[in-house]
Order: sequence, then C-alpha cells, then structure tokens
Amino acid sequence: MYALILAGGSGTRLWPHSRSAQPKQFLSINGERTMLQETVDRTLAIIPPERVYVATGPAYLELVMAQLPNVPRENILIEPSGRGTAPCIGLAALHLRRRDPGAVMAVLSADHRIEDAAGFRAALLMGEMMAQQGYLVTLGIQPSAPSTGYGYIQRGKRLYQEGQHEVFRVNAFVEKPDVERAHAYVASGEYYWNAGMFVWQAERILQELAWHRPALAQALALIDGSIGTPTQQSTLDMIWPEIESVAIDVAVMEQTCYAAVIPADLGWSDVGDWAALADSLPKDDNGNAVVGTYVGVDTHNSLIYGNGRVVATIGINDLMIVDMHDVLLLCPRSRAQDVKAMVAQVREQYRHLL
Amino acid sequence: MYALILAGGSGTRLWPHSRSAQPKQFLSINGERTMLQETVDRTLAIIPPERVYVATGPAYLELVMAQLPNVPRENILIEPSGRGTAPCIGLAALHLRRRDPGAVMAVLSADHRIEDAAGFRAALLMGEMMAQQGYLVTLGIQPSAPSTGYGYIQRGKRLYQEGQHEVFRVNAFVEKPDVERAHAYVASGEYYWNAGMFVWQAERILQELAWHRPALAQALALIDGSIGTPTQQSTLDMIWPEIESVAIDVAVMEQTCYAAVIPADLGWSDVGDWAALADSLPKDDNGNAVVGTYVGVDTHNSLIYGNGRVVATIGINDLMIVDMHDVLLLCPRSRAQDVKAMVAQVREQYRHLL
Repeated sequence: MYALILAGGSGTRLWPHSRSAQPKQFLSINGERTMLQETVDRTLAIIPPERVYVATGPAYLELVMAQLPNVPRENILIEPSGRGTAPCIGLAALHLRRRDPGAVMAVLSADHRIEDAAGFRAALLMGEMMAQQGYLVTLGIQPSAPSTGYGYIQRGKRLYQEGQHEVFRVNAFVEKPDVERAHAYVASGEYYWNAGMFVWQAERILQELAWHRPALAQALALIDGSIGTPTQQSTLDMIWPEIESVAIDVAVMEQTCYAAVIPADLGWSDVGDWAALADSLPKDDNGNAVVGTYVGVDTHNSLIYGNGRVVATIGINDLMIVDMHDVLLLCPRSRAQDVKAMVAQVREQYRHLL
Repeated sequence: MYALILAGGSGTRLWPHSRSAQPKQFLSINGERTMLQETVDRTLAIIPPERVYVATGPAYLELVMAQLPNVPRENILIEPSGRGTAPCIGLAALHLRRRDPGAVMAVLSADHRIEDAAGFRAALLMGEMMAQQGYLVTLGIQPSAPSTGYGYIQRGKRLYQEGQHEVFRVNAFVEKPDVERAHAYVASGEYYWNAGMFVWQAERILQELAWHRPALAQALALIDGSIGTPTQQSTLDMIWPEIESVAIDVAVMEQTCYAAVIPADLGWSDVGDWAALADSLPKDDNGNAVVGTYVGVDTHNSLIYGNGRVVATIGINDLMIVDMHDVLLLCPRSRAQDVKAMVAQVREQYRHLL
C-alpha cells in the first residue's frame, strides 16, 4: 500500500497559529511533531517513507522536504495551483500506476488528528483488502455528536465482517445537514462522517475518473504521456490551469456504485477550528486545555494556548486564548467559527499577520 | 509654596504593568509621561522644580533622578524604610523649615490622575492661603459615586468663600464605609473623598505632631539636629527603624481641630486598580479603552492595554486585557480587586514576574 498525503491546504480558521506561509499541517498542535509528521508517523508500521507521496503547493515544497527528510524528493508532487482533490488524486494515481500497476493508495489528509493509530492502521489494511477487490473505500467516522460541520455517508448492505471490523456498501454521500437532520442521522446509527480518507487502486480511480469525468481524465492522460520526458513540467504547467476544479467526492464517490465504507471509531478530529483543537487536547482539573505557562484563578473550560509568556487569568470561563509572538487572539469557545471574520478584518488592517 | 511628592509606594494592584522594581508612579498610563512626571508637570506653573521635594525608598532613587532631571538631588528624600506618611511628612517638614521657616508645603501623591489641572492649581493656591492662617488643609474630592474604597471627610461650617471656591472646617474623617453608609454620605452632600492631599505650613505640621505624637516628634527632633552634620545619614538610619509607623491622617488629621477641607471636583482618580485605570482612559464607540494595536469584532466595554503586539478579540465584553512583554493578564472588569490574589499566586510560582 502507498500513501498519498494531501498537504496543500491553507485554511485560516486556526489563525493566528496557522499563517498563509505556514498552514495548519506544518504546525504542531501540542508542541511536538507537526501534523504532517504525525500523519506519516501514524502509518509508518504499514507504509514506509519510500511509499509515501505528498501533494502540496509550490510554496510549501521546502517545508515538506524539511519536515519529512525520509520521503524521497520525487515522491513530493507539486500542484501548480489548487484545483480540488480530484485532479490532485488523479495526478498521484498516474505516478503510482507507472511505478506499480497494481498499486493501492490510501488518500490521507495532512491536518487531521487520530488518537487510535493502531485502529486506524487496522482500518487501512481492511481497506487495502477491499481495494484489491476493486472497491473504492472510504473510512466513515463514527459520529461523536450530531455535527452540522461534516458531510455524512449512509451505509448500505454489509459486504464483509471480520471480528469488530465491518465493511458496508455506500448508500449515499450527503452534504452537511441542518441540526434536525444531523440528529436523525446519528440516531439511525447508519450514518458516518465523511473525513475524506480513501483507499483504492490507482488504476481503479483513474478508470472511475474516465467514466464520470472524461474531460478531466483526458487532461490527466496528456500529463501522463509527458511523465519522464523533457516536457513533463511544461505540460503540467500548461494543462493544470485549464483542468476542472472538483472534489473527488463530487467527481467520483457520489457517482460510483463501487463505493464501500469502513466504519471507524478512532478519536478523529479535523482540528477544523480552535474549539475543535481545544477539544482534542487533554484537560486539567478545571477543564482547561493548557499549552505553555499558565497561572489561573477561578478559570474554567478555557483554552490557554501560549507561546513562552506567562498567561494569567482571573474569573475566565469558556474562553479561547491564543497567545502568539506577534498577535493575541481572544475568542469565546462558542464563536470559533468567527475567526474567519476576524481574519477578513486583519487582512484589511494588518495583512502581514496572515 | 513647596511640593512634597510621596513616591515611595509599591502596590500590586496594577500588576503586571507595575512591578516591584517599577511601581505605578514610575509608569506611564497612556504611553506618554509617567505619573510622577505628570504630578510635577501639573503644578509647574505654581511650584518650580527647585521647590519640588520627592520622598521615596532607596530602591527608587535612580528612577526619580532619571524621571525628574530638573529636581535637585538634595530635594530627593530617601526614607530608609516605609514607616507610613507621618514620619515621611515630618522628615520633609524638617528640611523645608530649615530652608524657609515660613514654608507652606503641598503634600501630593505621585500616582494619582487629575484631569482638571487648572482647577487643581486653583485649589492648591486657596489651600496655601488657608495654610498661611495656620489651618491644616485637605483637598476633599467631590464623590462621583458611593465608593466604599475611600475614606470620607465630613465638612463642618464654612470658613471662607471666593467665587466657586469654598473652604469648610472638617467635622470628621471617617474610615472606608459600607455600601449603605457610602450612599448616605454621598446623598447628604456633606462628604468628600479623602485623597491624601494636604496643604500646611511645615512649622504647623511639626507642631501638631509634637502635640499629638510626642514620641514621633522627639525622634524627628533628633534627626533634625543631625541635618547638615557628618552624622546626618547615620542618625537617620539609626532612628528610622524605631520610629512609629503611622499615617498622617491618624497621627494628626483625625485629632486636630485646625483641619479644613477645600471641596474639589477635578476628575481625580487614584488609578487604584485596572478598572479605575480603564475608567480614566478615553473610550471608542464600543466603550473600549484601547492602548496599543487592536482589532475587534463585536467587542464592548473592555480594556485593551497592549504593548506592541496586535490584540484581536471576538465577542468579548467587560474584560480587561493587559498584554505585557512577559505576561498576559485577563480579568473581568468586575474582578479588578482579585489581581491581588493573582499576584499572591504568581509570587509562589513565578516570583521573577513581580
């Protein structure tokens, strides 16, 4: 099995920790390994570095090389620009198929946290087995709450069971629901969060793209023809800007009848905002998640995310305190989504801080 | 008229802006002149620097000299240790009486803010006139609220009036009241805040000390005899530790029948804690007092007291944010008094930050 790690994102919801020059995947959440490094570490027992591929933007090549010294340079695929996950996965599949016609690839995000790494590896191995039978496998995250922030996967009939591990056909991929629907989904027990993690053969995903997205597949075929020739880079640079920008979920997963889902309860988080980050950290006796040096008087359920200075709080509840060397962000836990609005305002006034 | 500026305090309620090595009076509140400098500036039109005396502790001599280069070195009186205001004022009175037997001294705090400097000077000049008649004059601050944080002065019969300015006998000095009493005091219109500002002849305050505090006066007389001799410093160092530690209010003002009060409505604040400091600063349209660089989304009635970094807040109300280079303090406006508790905790864990 090979890994394709998608590391091209540049989100703003963890500002001011994540910056445009150093997005979330290149940062450490807990002060140790970066999220990208943890992503590689997590599957090291089943996917050695020489079979790890990373897709990222030109601006992040240096960061990837510095953070993953054991991943060969030729395994780092540079998307000239962000065109969604389908072209990116297609490009990686071309390279993998050339290297190994029977290659199975696990598509992973560089900026997710997973507590149960062993369970995750077991799910991937199960995925590999199903992929070898031609299925397009997705990991379905057991919902821990009726979140309206994720798309859901509805399972169909069971395809396979081995011990606690099950595989189901996918009945439907559904968009982010409203609160009522989210409650119904979770209550039914038939729905999982779509975390954007997949396992399939490189050859199979290219077949599916050819079937459901012929223009995209044609563009990929042109790129494929140039790989290993002197025009490889110029062909990519020429074709890429015109290629359809589309997510693999839309291009293939919502269309195909070969989709399978492996339910997984892994302590997963996409660390999508500061509240999710706080949730993913251990808590002290007062429910505070603390990174850094902190003195608290009567302070509860808060995130203290420091950076060297002492943070001293009196009578603070449900607040997120993000203390960076050049910016201090204060935001109630309930308003984590509004960091986007803050970033918009900072863009006007203090662009250098993004 | 001479000024005696009391600059020996070392309070903790404005931590982490004020530190033991640099208490409030040596700091700027608004980023410009320090409170000590503003105290001198305020009366410059009626008291030139060569008639300004400053009493402080040995640790602060350098700071006073640096901040007040125009005040002669011999006008800076070093208290070997803090013994309350009565010995300190007595010591200064000895020096002033030697320089000018008819000297009138205005006793001022180095760490108060006064918005109406012109009105303040007018009140001091009125005080000088009353002092020349032998009165022990105190400025009574027109209460802006029924505060329980100050002592009050009850006025007696009117002694003098000139335009808007009035002088009353003092009926009584009363300790910090409870809320009910504070309301009654303010409603009566007969009570003023005791701000610890006085005007009297140096000779008269020494007489009063002799009458009400004979042991203290005797100690001062020994010091007086040594002034200008080779044993001046050794005498002071020997006698001072044994001298009674007592406030001038207790030693004299509550005892004497020569006390007079000049009501004054000056926009006075002792900047006694962060809430008082916030009150004394100008506000933006959202009621925020901002010092430094700030981006706010939906933020109201807060203090943003920055120090170079950008402070970014979302959905914050009634919070005090004090952002120093080595400490960040967060405290709701209503809990300003609890900074003392925080300082106690910091003393145990991070003593170097005091």
